[in-house]
This record gives sequence, structure tokens and C-alpha cells, in this order.
Amino acid sequence: MDIYAKRLQAVHQSMINWGLDTLLLTPGAAMRYLTGFSEEGFERLLCLIVPDDRECVFICPALNAEQARKNPAGITDIRVWDDGMGWDKVLKDLSSQLDLDIGIIGVDPGMAARFLLRMQELLPTTLFKSADEVFTECRIQKDAGELASLQHAAEISDRAFETAITVCREGRTEMEVALAINNAIALEGVDTSFDTIVASGPNSALPHHTPSSRKLRTGDVVNLDFGARYDGYCGDITRVVTIGQPSDEAAQIYSIVYAAHQAARNTARPGVSAQAVDAAARLVIVEAGYGEFFIHRTGHGIGLDDHEQPNIVAGSYQKLLPGMCFSIEPGIYLPGKFGIRLENIYTITNEGCRSLNQEISPTLLSADWSNA
Amino acid sequence: MDIYAKRLQAVHQSMINWGLDTLLLTPGAAMRYLTGFSEEGFERLLCLIVPDDRECVFICPALNAEQARKNPAGITDIRVWDDGMGWDKVLKDLSSQLDLDIGIIGVDPGMAARFLLRMQELLPTTLFKSADEVFTECRIQKDAGELASLQHAAEISDRAFETAITVCREGRTEMEVALAINNAIALEGVDTSFDTIVASGPNSALPHHTPSSRKLRTGDVVNLDFGARYDGYCGDITRVVTIGQPSDEAAQIYSIVYAAHQAARNTARPGVSAQAVDAAARLVIVEAGYGEFFIHRTGHGIGLDDHEQPNIVAGSYQKLLPGMCFSIEPGIYLPGKFGIRLENIYTITNEGCRSLNQEISPTLLSADWSNA
Repeated sequence: MDIYAKRLQAVHQSMINWGLDTLLLTPGAAMRYLTGFSEEGFERLLCLIVPDDRECVFICPALNAEQARKNPAGITDIRVWDDGMGWDKVLKDLSSQLDLDIGIIGVDPGMAARFLLRMQELLPTTLFKSADEVFTECRIQKDAGELASLQHAAEISDRAFETAITVCREGRTEMEVALAINNAIALEGVDTSFDTIVASGPNSALPHHTPSSRKLRTGDVVNLDFGARYDGYCGDITRVVTIGQPSDEAAQIYSIVYAAHQAARNTARPGVSAQAVDAAARLVIVEAGYGEFFIHRTGHGIGLDDHEQPNIVAGSYQKLLPGMCFSIEPGIYLPGKFGIRLENIYTITNEGCRSLNQEISPTLLSADWSNA
Repeated sequence: MDIYAKRLQAVHQSMINWGLDTLLLTPGAAMRYLTGFSEEGFERLLCLIVPDDRECVFICPALNAEQARKNPAGITDIRVWDDGMGWDKVLKDLSSQLDLDIGIIGVDPGMAARFLLRMQELLPTTLFKSADEVFTECRIQKDAGELASLQHAAEISDRAFETAITVCREGRTEMEVALAINNAIALEGVDTSFDTIVASGPNSALPHHTPSSRKLRTGDVVNLDFGARYDGYCGDITRVVTIGQPSDEAAQIYSIVYAAHQAARNTARPGVSAQAVDAAARLVIVEAGYGEFFIHRTGHGIGLDDHEQPNIVAGSYQKLLPGMCFSIEPGIYLPGKFGIRLENIYTITNEGCRSLNQEISPTLLSADWSNA
């Protein structure tokens, strides 16, 4: 049985588990998981229909039809609509053929409201739910092929950091450093898995800062958060460097975050809950007196989505199991001063967990000693 | 009155016109239009609430709170939630304060189903609709400041094409050419407005091809479709070159598409319908015998979104009015052979329309004569 047939079988079983009769999936990780295909439809509806007992069907804009016909899963029923006619009629026709007007439809959690609201109007007797649990169930434990792709993505991300550290110099802007990272990844023939973050000086206190024209200065803490995507699977690392000599305070905060990171990885093993891993990191930071400055969960699952289950977060009883992959990325953010976050991707093994990335430096690295 | 207060006033009027009591806007063009702020929340809910008669409120994840507090519109009511607690309670609390549990809520058309479905569960007595019409009404005619930003975006895009033509050479991959375009844009300190398309040889017959490792060869037709984003406003051009001498067929198809493009722009003026502009381009291509290979609308509106109203499409009675901005981009796609699309951005003036971009070459340009 080929990989896509096998995945479809697992998804069908999971649909039964979660009480869903049909899935409607717009472009994204779920479509890619089931078909190997996912082109952006943007404001045009491109949708995979997964009935519980019949063949899958694509609804496809005319301008993506040639691409959809080459889908690796070999789905041949492709209903094409064009800009002049719209997609209402195609969905209505399929509704009677596939009994979409009754029962429960699970939709892609990323489906845009413009599509979902229109579908709810066109199918007023159907209940719509998120299909999130189905794909979490099917995708949360990675198989050997998926692990190999995640390993590739991690290695490309690690190599991009080697480039990044050479370009973090006084006078360079955050955008220039981000560009160098993006180029290092592009030159390996792959995409980034999300928009690269380069956050320097006080900007590093913003976990999701967008790279700006701010120039790096001696004494800056610089957070670099980025990843490569290999065959759909995401990499994601965060490294921190200083320009020139680190301040004592930065070196101290770095040590605390590093210790929190190590505490979390040493806790992660089969059978442990996700929240226990979060608590291990959080305890180190709270005991050091910085609890209020650790303003996010310890980590997130990763795979075809850069953020998926298992989240490493307070309140999650999810038991960690072999093949699960997730980030550990505690951080401390001191508003107006600086922030430090240290992130690697781990996979649960039979005994414990293994980092897909190079080890993080135990001490804060200096990227530019030209003014030291 | 500052720009954001003025826009909020217009949106309030439009909410009355469309019968919406409250707006819930996730990150994107609408949030940016009203606040000057839009950071990605990804799977975390970041949401602007626009009541009809009270101050706006942000629901914001803890890790974006510092960013949200700096919003240019000066919104001060920011309800922060953290990963351990989730956002349900914040929305429920606001529900009673802001009467979200009654009436009609308009949501951002790009809001992800994971948020919309949960909101529908939490507010079961409320009707949810798309807020698309509100923002179309408010944003479809650009003011002088918006036109200036679109002009900047167009000029940066034009300059990036000058770089692109120098790197389109035999042996280069599509991804390498895309990277050169992205870098040319990044070096001007701005982002791309969408993922750059470089489609060569038979790939050029796919309108939304993703750049691949295919190497350019002598005789290839190469479609380049990209744009810069300046202060949130999008550029978008498509240019076509050949590697070495064009074939007679490619030169002929180019002439037809060029004539269709000119026919459309010569039709576009105040009071004309969007579909008349589509029909003008389509007529040229149909009469040349290629109607079935023009598989998309003639154009789309552009502004804070790269695709917004007015669509230049069959069936649209939308009257064109001064300040409206849109692409004209007819194309002919011959499956397995090649495709050609020619795109500029136009704005309707008092008399007719004006291109924001450099004029398109009337004849097919050759990018690499090294093997000629």
C-alpha cells in the first residue's frame, strides 16, 4: 500500500473516532499529508473533499487545475471552476452526490472564514466542526520517513546559523541579517518554514519581533529564530549572540534560560506529560526570580506545520510517545532591555529524547569582537 | 482628525450600511487599515474588536502584548491572555461588556476556522457573517496617501525586474532567479507582497507555479510574477522574457496577450464596469483563437491586500471610480508548451486610467543571448 493510501486509511479510522462524516480541507498541512499536494488557492476555493466511504475529490480553480492533476496521491476526480462562474454550483452538485447536506463535516483548522461562512450558508443542515483532532491523532507520532525529513530540515537550519553568526556585526541591520539567513537556506534549494526573526537590543524583548532597519550595536543581545522546510517538514531553532562582549546581566539570563532548556529536555521521555516538561523549564526560571518574564509556553509540536501538537504547555495532559517531535524554547524577556530564548527540536525516543539540532552553546556567544 | 479615527468613522458608517453590530478582526489588511498594526498571531488568537458605539479592544496573546501596546491608532484596551489559560474566558468576559452575545458579528474574511468555529460555540446566539463588504466599501477607492504607497511599491517592483532580467541566464534555476528578485526587493528595505513566481519552459503554462530547481534553457519562455510591499501596500507585476531567441509561436502569443492588455487598459475609465474591462481583454484573445487558454479573470484589485476588490471579472457590475487600483493581467497558457501573462497595476483617474508601473515591452524580450 502506498504512503497516501495508508494515510487515508488512518484518517478514515480517525474520522470514525471523532464522529466526522466528511472532511473539507483547504491548502495546508492536512491536504499535503493526504495527497502530497498543496498549492495556495488564496481567495479562490481549492479544497480536498474526503468522504468516509467514497473516493476523494478536489474542488479546484481553473488556474490550479494542471497542478492538481499531478497530485502524488493520484486523485483523479477534480472539479474545476473558473473565475466567471465561481464555486457555489460545484459544491452544490457535490453535496447531493456525496451527502454533504447531512451529518458532520470536519474542516481544515486553517480554512479562511470567507469559505467556511459560505459553506455554512450553502449547507445549512450540516454541522461544521474543526478537523484538528483527526490530524493531530494521525500526525502526532512521526514515522521514519517523516523523522528523516525533520532531521534534514534541522541540519539545514543549523548550517544557516553558522552563516548567521558571521554576518551579525556592528552596523548591519536586522533585515540584512534576516536576508543572509534566508539566502543561506534558499541556496540549499529549500524554503524557510516561517518568517525569520532577527531581534536586536531592546527588540529582543519582543518574542515575535519583525526584523527592522535597526542597526546592530556593540553590547546588543540578538535573538535569531528561523527554520528551513524540507519536503514540507519544518525546522525551527532560536540562537542568541551578542555583539562584542556580553554584559554580566545578559550572560546571567542566558545561563538561566540554558538551565531551563536542559531541565525540560531531561524531563522529556515516553509517558511523561507535556505539561511536566513545561513545568520543568518554568521551575528553573521561577526559582531564579524571572517567572513573570517567561511569557509563553515552553514549546510546540512540529511537522508539516511549524506549530502543531503536542504543545508543551501548562494544562496539557498529553502523554509524550516515541516519534513525537516538538520544540523546547524557554525564554526570558525584560521589556525595554533585552530577551533571550533558546530553542531546539527534539524527538521522543524509546528511552528519552534526542535533539535533531546541534547542541546549544552553554555560554552566550559573541558574534563580533571588532570593537572589543 | 487623525487617519485612524477617520477610517474608524467610515467603518462605523459602513457597519450600519451592512447591518453589522460588531467586527472581530484577526491579523491582516483590515486590522492594519484600522490600527496601523498587524502582527501574526498564528495559532494564537490576536483579535481587534470593533463595537458600533464603544472603544475598540484588542484580545492579545501575552507574547505579542508589547507590540500591540504600540499600535499607531492608540488603542489602549488590550486584554492579554497567556498560553496556560487560553482565550475563551477573555472572550466570554468581553461578551457581556460589549454585547457580543446578540446581533450580528462581522468577521475578517481571512479568519481561520479554528477561531471562527470556537467563537460560534462560545456565542451560540450570535449570527456570524463576513465583514468583506464593509472593508471593500471603505478601502476600494484609495486616497492620496494610499496611492503614493502603491506607487512606491510599483517602482520598487519595476526596479526588481531590471535585476531579474540580468540573472535570467541559461543554467540558472527558477529558485535562483526568484531569490535574486527577492533580494533586490529586500535590499530596498521592504518585503515581497506574495511568494515570487518564476516559471520557465513548460512550467510557464501553470499560472501559479512554485519556483523549482528546473534550470533555464535556451528557447525557454520565463514568466516572472512578483511584487514589493511598501508600508503595507502591495506591488504586483508580471513580465515575460525568453532565454535567447524567441520562437515564432512565443513571439506571436506575446503579441496577442500584449494587445489584450492594451485593449483592457484602453477600456478602463470612470463609470465603466469591471466586467467590460475583462471582456475587452478576453475578446482579443478569443478572436485570436485562444479563448480556452485564458483560464483566469483579467485582474484583481490591490491595496493592503494583494488581491482585493475590484476584481476585473465576468459578471462584475462594479463601476470603476477614481482611486480604484487593480491589475490588468491577461494570459494564454498552452499546457505542456508555455504560457505568457502580462501584468501592470492601474489606477482610475478622472479621465481614464494610469499605470503605476513602467510600460510593458511591446515585443518579447530576450534575457540571455550568450548562445544566440
